Parts: sequence; C-alpha cells; structure tokens
Amino acid sequence: MLYLTSVVVSLDVDTDRNGLINKKKSDKTSWTWGSHGHGAILLVNCDKDNSKCNDVDNADEIINLNQDLKDMSCMILRTSGPDAIFASHKVILHISPSDSDKVGVFHAKITNSDPQFQHVLGRNKLLYEIEDVSGEKENTFFLEGLRFPDADFSGLITVGFTLLDCSEESLPNIPVFTDLVVFRVAPWIMTPNTLEPEEVFVCRLPSNIEFLDQLTDLVKQAQCKLTVCEEDDNRGDRWIQDEMEFGYTEGPDKCFPVVFDSPRNGGLKDFPFKKILGPDFGYVKREPASLFDVSSLDYFGNLEVSPPVTVKGRTYPLGRILIGSNILASAGRRMNEALRDFLFAQQVQAPVELYVDWLLVGHVDEFMTFTPAHDRKGFRLLLASPTVCYQLFQEKKQQGFGDAAMFQGINTIQHSIDDLLSNELMKADNDYVQRCINWNRNILKAQLGLTEQDIIDVPALFYLQDQKALGFFPVMVNMIVLGKYLGIPKPFGPVIEGKCCLEEKVVSLLEPLGLSCTFLNDFASYHQKYGDVHCGTNVRRQPFDFKWWHMRDPLIYKQTMNIPFNFWT
Amino acid sequence: MLYLTSVVVSLDVDTDRNGLINKKKSDKTSWTWGSHGHGAILLVNCDKDNSKCNDVDNADEIINLNQDLKDMSCMILRTSGPDAIFASHKVILHISPSDSDKVGVFHAKITNSDPQFQHVLGRNKLLYEIEDVSGEKENTFFLEGLRFPDADFSGLITVGFTLLDCSEESLPNIPVFTDLVVFRVAPWIMTPNTLEPEEVFVCRLPSNIEFLDQLTDLVKQAQCKLTVCEEDDNRGDRWIQDEMEFGYTEGPDKCFPVVFDSPRNGGLKDFPFKKILGPDFGYVKREPASLFDVSSLDYFGNLEVSPPVTVKGRTYPLGRILIGSNILASAGRRMNEALRDFLFAQQVQAPVELYVDWLLVGHVDEFMTFTPAHDRKGFRLLLASPTVCYQLFQEKKQQGFGDAAMFQGINTIQHSIDDLLSNELMKADNDYVQRCINWNRNILKAQLGLTEQDIIDVPALFYLQDQKALGFFPVMVNMIVLGKYLGIPKPFGPVIEGKCCLEEKVVSLLEPLGLSCTFLNDFASYHQKYGDVHCGTNVRRQPFDFKWWHMRDPLIYKQTMNIPFNFWT
Repeated sequence: MLYLTSVVVSLDVDTDRNGLINKKKSDKTSWTWGSHGHGAILLVNCDKDNSKCNDVDNADEIINLNQDLKDMSCMILRTSGPDAIFASHKVILHISPSDSDKVGVFHAKITNSDPQFQHVLGRNKLLYEIEDVSGEKENTFFLEGLRFPDADFSGLITVGFTLLDCSEESLPNIPVFTDLVVFRVAPWIMTPNTLEPEEVFVCRLPSNIEFLDQLTDLVKQAQCKLTVCEEDDNRGDRWIQDEMEFGYTEGPDKCFPVVFDSPRNGGLKDFPFKKILGPDFGYVKREPASLFDVSSLDYFGNLEVSPPVTVKGRTYPLGRILIGSNILASAGRRMNEALRDFLFAQQVQAPVELYVDWLLVGHVDEFMTFTPAHDRKGFRLLLASPTVCYQLFQEKKQQGFGDAAMFQGINTIQHSIDDLLSNELMKADNDYVQRCINWNRNILKAQLGLTEQDIIDVPALFYLQDQKALGFFPVMVNMIVLGKYLGIPKPFGPVIEGKCCLEEKVVSLLEPLGLSCTFLNDFASYHQKYGDVHCGTNVRRQPFDFKWWHMRDPLIYKQTMNIPFNFWT
Repeated sequence: MLYLTSVVVSLDVDTDRNGLINKKKSDKTSWTWGSHGHGAILLVNCDKDNSKCNDVDNADEIINLNQDLKDMSCMILRTSGPDAIFASHKVILHISPSDSDKVGVFHAKITNSDPQFQHVLGRNKLLYEIEDVSGEKENTFFLEGLRFPDADFSGLITVGFTLLDCSEESLPNIPVFTDLVVFRVAPWIMTPNTLEPEEVFVCRLPSNIEFLDQLTDLVKQAQCKLTVCEEDDNRGDRWIQDEMEFGYTEGPDKCFPVVFDSPRNGGLKDFPFKKILGPDFGYVKREPASLFDVSSLDYFGNLEVSPPVTVKGRTYPLGRILIGSNILASAGRRMNEALRDFLFAQQVQAPVELYVDWLLVGHVDEFMTFTPAHDRKGFRLLLASPTVCYQLFQEKKQQGFGDAAMFQGINTIQHSIDDLLSNELMKADNDYVQRCINWNRNILKAQLGLTEQDIIDVPALFYLQDQKALGFFPVMVNMIVLGKYLGIPKPFGPVIEGKCCLEEKVVSLLEPLGLSCTFLNDFASYHQKYGDVHCGTNVRRQPFDFKWWHMRDPLIYKQTMNIPFNFWT
C-alpha cells in the first residue's frame, strides 16, 4: 500500500485562536487554557440575525443570512492525493451522540457560484459522508454551538472524520485513518460596574415620571444610550434589574452581548426575548423544572459580579460572580439549582455565595455594590452600614441637631434623630442586620482578597418585617453606576443647615475617589415598593479587554458552600 | 464579646489519610490529589455486613452491627469553652441538598455505656441540631458514602457545621462561626491480570464436566480458591465473565472487594447480588433507563484493564480501563452511556475505547489479553493474529506438512493446512480482521505507551458471519491468567509429529517469559457457543499496593473518542 504515502487528509480549525485556520500541524485533539493555550472556540449562536425569524439562530437548521456565518466557527477539510484513492474510500464526518444536542455543522457548497449551506451534523445527525472529495480539494464547514456549558456539559465538543476503505465490496468498510478536532463552547460572561456603560434600561410607568426625568439627565451626563421599556412591554412591572442580566460571549472573531433571562416571569416576562434578542444580541434562559420552585432569590438583583480580583495569588481576571444564598443550605431560601448550575458551569467567573436570607426580598444588591476608584485595586466595595448611620446620628445629636427630621417633604411619617436614637427595638433590629452584613463582609474579604481599605461603609438603616429586613430609608448602595457617575437613591435624611446629612456623608466618602454623586428621588416610585434605583434599572456594559481563554486555572468543580472563616481568629 | 475568645469549636477528620483524626489545624475545606495531598476519604458502604439484611448496608438508615462502623469514616466535633456560651448558641451540622443522596451521617451517643447510633443527615435530612454540646466535649459521627462517583457526581461531598447565636429570642438566629469538611468518595477500581489471583469463578453445567476438571487442576496449581456457581444459580448461563467484573474500593482504614454487576441479565442475573454481595464484599450496578438499550457490548467481557503504564511521561499507576466501542461513535454498537459514564467518573483508571464492532459478539477479550512477564514493563500485550497464523501454516506447508489437519479427535469438520491456505474467501476475511486488529494495536500502543517489543502476536483465525467476525478455532488470547499459570483455549491445530503446531508456537512465545501454559478443552462447551475460556471464567484478584489518592493527575473530563493516529506517519 505504498501508494497511500502520497495522500494527505486533514481537518483544520483555528487552534491558535487568532481568527485564522491553521494549516500547520498542531494539536487539535486537546484544549488548554492560558495565553499560550491551544484549541478552537465555538460560539453559541443564540442571537437572531434575521428579524423575520421567531427564535434564536441555532434553533433551526438553516442559515438565513450570510451575517449568521460570522457567528460560526470555520473548519476546513483538506484532501490531497490521486483521485483514484478517494474513489475507493469514504470520508465520514462524525460526532458522538452526547454532543449532538450541543453543536450544528453546515457544509458550504458552491453551486452555480452561489454558496449553499447544508446542515449535515447535529440533532439526530451523527454522521455525514462527504461525497465531493478528490485530490487537491478543500471542503468548508461552519459550526455553531447550541448550548452554553452547564452541569451536564463541560463545554468541550469533538468533531471527527474517518477515512474508510470501501475497495472490497464483499467486506465491511475498514477504517484507515481518523482525525479529531476539539472545540470549547465560549461561556456567558457578566460585566461588573467597573466596565464602561453603553446602554441603560428603565421602565416607564404612570408613577415614575419624576424619576425617569432625573435618570434621563444622569444617563446623558454619562453619555450612554437610554432605552425606556414602555408600558405595553412592562405591563406595570418596574423591576427591570430582576428580569434579566446583561453579559456577553466572545470568540477570536466575534463578540456579542447576550441577555440572561430570569425565571422570574413578572410583567416584564416577554421583554428580553421580544425586545432585546436581535441581530448580534443573544439570549439565554434557564428555568427550574417547576415554576413553583422559583423564589425571589432567583431574580437577578441577586446576581452580581465583582471587578477583577486576586485572592492569595490566584487571579480572577473577569471577577467573580456573587449570588445570594443562605448559610444553612438546607434551610430557608436559596437560588435555584438550575441557575446555580449554569453560573458555575461557565467556569471563568467562579461564583461566591453570600448570605441574603436575612432580607425580605433577599438580593445581594440590597446591601452592597462596587464603584470604580482611581486608586488601589481600581474599585471599592460599598456596604450598607447601620453602625455608621448610628454613629453619624449620634454625632449630629451631640452637635445639637437631635430634632432634625428624616423624610421632609415626602408623604410619610417624619422621624427626628432623637426619635430614631431612642428607639430600642430599631436599634436591636439594626444590630442584628449589622451582624448579618458583617458575615458577608468577611466572606467578601476572604473570597475577593479585599482589605478594610477596599471597603466603604455607607450609612443605612433597616427594619424587620416578619423577622426579615427591609430598608428603612432608600438604600444608597442600591445605586446605578455609570462610569464615574453614580445615581444614588435619595435618602431623605435629617436636614441640617439646609443639607441632608446622609447625602453629605456619602458625597464625602465617594467624591475623593473621583466619583460624581447624583441623588435620584425613588421614594414613592420604588422604595415604598421594596426596591431602589438599582432594582429599577439595568445596564449593558462593554465587554472585558481580557480574553476568557487566556485564563490559566478556571474553576473545575462546583463548590457547595463558601470557604468558612472565623470571627474569633 | 471578648468572652468569646476562649471558645474553640472544630470539626475534625482524617485529612492526612493515615487512619487518625487530625487534631491540628489543617486545610479541611479542599481536597488535593497526590502523595502529599490532603482531604478526607469516604467509602461507599455497599457491602452487607449483616447476613439477615436484604440489601447493601447503605440502603437503610441503621447500623446493624459494629463491624459496619469499620466501613465508615469518623468525624469528631470538639467543643471547648464556658457552658454558658453553648447554652445561648445552637450547633448545627448540615449538608447541601445536592449531597443528600450521596452521604449518610450517624451520631454516636453513649447511653448507659451502650453506644447508640442515630441517623442524623442524609436523604431528606439536611440539618441536625446537636443538643448535647458543652465545654470540653467531643461528639463523634460516622459517615458512609451512598453512591460512587458518576456523570453527575464528582465524588466530592461537603459537611458543614455552624454556630448560631440564639441569645436574642425576639430575633432570628445569627450565624457566628462556620466550618466545613470536604470528603472524596473512594472510586471503584479494577484489577488487571498482573495482580495476584485469589478466587476463580466458573459455572457448572451438564456439558462442561471435562472443562471443569481441567480448570480445577489449573486453579490448584495456581493456589487459588475455586468457587463453582451451581446450576441453581446459573440457570444454564455459562458466561460468568460477562455477568460481572470484580474490583475493589479502598480508604486509609479499610479495603474491600466490590462486584460490578453488568446490565446483561442472563441466567446468572441474580448471582452477584445473592451470592457475591456479603460481609466486606460490596456490590454496585448501573443500568440504562431502558433494558432495550442493552447490547452485548455492555457485557463485561468487553470491560478489561491494563497493567500500570506510563504514556509520554504521564503515569497510570492503576492502569487504564479498556472498553470496546466503534470508530464512528454514531454508527453501530457502543457500550451504553450509563456504564461509560460510571467508568469515566471513577477517574483513576482513565478509560481507552477500542474498536470491537467488527466482531459478532463485540468484546475486547476476543482479540487481546495481558500476561505478566519477568522483564521489560512486567507484562506483555497479547493480540490475536491471523497474519502470524498464516505465516505458521505456510512454513509448515513448505516443510511438507500441508496435509496435517485441524480439529482432530473432535466432532467437527477437519481442515488440512492445504485446504485452509487455498481458501481465498477465508484469506480475504482474515486480511480484513487483521486490519481491524491493527487499528486497535495502534490505539493500544498510543494510549498505553507500548512498543512492538511489548506485544506478542498469537496465531488466530476468524471467519465472518453476517459480516461480523467469530473465531474459527478457539481464540487462544481468550485465556485465564492466574499469576504465571495460563489456562489457554486448546486450539486443536494441525498435528505435526504428534504435536499441535499452534500449541507449540504459543508455548515457544510465552514460556521464555516465565509463564506456564495449560491448554483447556473448551471446544464443545464454550467455543462452539461463541466464547472461550476467558468468557466462561472470572477472577477476583488482590488490590494494588498503590493507593489511588496518591495519583497526581487523574482524568478530569470524559473524552468522547480516542486520540487518533495515522497509519501513514
């Protein structure tokens, strides 16, 4: 069989991740992380390039528009050798059954100079015989991912081809050569407050006209696009933060935003699919088997992400996802397993679980946020702090302002500093809340590698209803962060010498970091309905410059709980 | 709260894997591989210590006999401090919902000097308040694993405890301290032919009296125990290799054999559960959702393991599992996903998939085996070889023995060497078979790091029935290996000068390695029913000296297909 020595067959992809198909021999059968890593990348083709379609691009087995090809990875089968060889051999492209719901492969065929794309591998299509193979020929294929990584899917996909000798008609075909190519499906990636904002989302309601005006001014200042979700689309639901989370997915050639739709399903239920999904804007949703299993911990005010951090020498260049949970995983509310599985499976933003079951609503954005800063690690963690609030009020009382009252000019009962300080029940509730926040402070310090200098305590007061906490006045950490421009819930604190002492305090903490504070009145329109500015807005941000495949050591297994710490040591 | 500084609470386990509970501070919250690794180990308590029970020990929530405790891992909660502290705090032991079907925890309580064991965590029990906590106290717990690692279970389990401040009755309990302990469930491990045999299993049938006598002699020579499965237990089924695979599981304190029951379910169906499961003999089974999905590739003649190997610097100190599959994963027969998932998930014997779909039965033991050897890597790979058989017959013909006939003295058609050599159809079939075996030879060389010097070609002939291969004469590589004693299917080859030339050839290949060859007549009793000696026997072997947790770099993801190779390079 010496004649075979002149035959070359190879399946080539972009193993170098530089946007070019490698012709040179390289290791296509494994996939490694890191800036010197190798292995091809596949995008989940979850946008909708053709506005006439009813679903995401990878839901069907056709390519509608050529721009859809740009969301796909290219693979070239190169054959070279005497035509006679290929006449007596079959060339089979194949995938394994377990990959068939994760990848779709299209064969590009040139007929009458018009390219045609035939769906050849995917759901129920496990092998494909390439008919048009001969010496000196290139067959081009386009691949799309069908699913993001998840509990049952590592993200790795293998496509193989095998050359079968069929020269002996009376016998089964004999395998002569096989080649494999491994792809990794790109993860869904979240964007922290430190990334530049591009577009702000808010709902229009009969009751939030003043708020909307104030927010519009702030968004203009920050030079972002403002998208208002009108009443037809929000159906009276104002909590646009809770309905969806903006992230993105990226390959060497292409990067596009992807909205993650919460299983919450309020009035805004259809908004992400109907109005956000579109050309180069992807969509993904995860739901528990039963919608009875959805709790408010599954709303995306309970899903945030930190800026990039380094923890004991381990870097998280894309930050770490933060989700709210409880300490005794077995008791109380917890984010649903279907969501947790999805978030952990993305691997590149190893999630941290915080303790939120002490809150009535139960979202991480009720007691914390991050802002950019021009010093130190480039950001600060802001935590709600009853202790700092009591300290401020004590100070003001000592300065003779004990009769200065909260909630002036709005339609609610006013409380003087003296009243608040002498309310023993309120003090006990807030001592309790402070201890719950301290617990989270310690988790955050340990899991994000932070020191006290990275944290700013922002005055806040809570009260308990059915033994669960709610903000007593608008929770200032529940802010919108647009670059250096902060839209902070107006606290309506005690007015002293014409100024709100809470606003004054926060400005004195944040402006030295180069931040600009705007206080937005969300009292009647959001706060009294158990949320604040952050809960009522959403922001699409620029992606990271850092490429996820350059990570060296991503999370490989799901931790069930956080690393513990000890208050006494 | 300075008084708290004198309180010590810790949850201690055997993180050093030396059989002792660590008192010193160590990292209990992570688990690492290697001889310097740390992290506690949990056994799946799948034996049946009490013969009165109807199921494995971990199927219920009681401890029947004290010897059952020896299969469990111990965990001690140590508390030290003023009793008053513990009066105002709750101590909660907890597991996550996803671990609740994987671990059972028992609390050892001494009452009237008699220890009582209360089942406190496991299925439907996610948290447990330890009532009897005070200063200077040790609470002892015993843990059992409920499941081996699998596709949906990495093997890691976390047990936590949390101290809750309940001093303020009007408020929810406040978490004060938490601690976690990570365990890894010990895998199921297979034993290659190079390990010392302890017990041989065979079925008694009306038709295998002569074979049984010959095997009994061989087993005596090898100084093993022989266990005969009587007709009541085998119900006419002779394929005891196919019904089960012997392996073991091991922790720092305890090691016991575990039988893996095939989903095959012939006459021997109940034998592993009813007769093998017992005190310190565990049992595990995996079945596909539908038994219609079971094919002969799911029988355990298709499940073998190599001796320890090193491949391109990567060591497999427990060898690699070998399973038969096909090349186009999408076409033809393949081992069921439920079995494949289980085997891959054990991690420590990274499976290799071979090509067996060319065989009518489709088992790896139909064309290969391993024997010990006193040189080189300590073993040889033996492969069935039509080429070598034809070479031998040509040689004999040239020496003037063309009329020597096969199958002398047995009740079948005899064939002379001349007849066989002139049969063009037979030659074509065997050329095809040889190419299929060559394909596997290349996979085995690549995946086990073997060279040609590690391989012995053993004469064999096949024929095709419905385009699938069967042994033409007893397949000698389908042998039983008991240390240096080999029980080889008697080939009934051409008799030349009073000797079978096939036996003579095999003896000349194997005796120089220090092996002793005994040829067993399995012709009517096994061979004519499509199997040989290996198919009709089973061997329990000693475990490895090497401890699985000393592995440095086990398999972390399931490969869908083998690394390819190229015949032309």
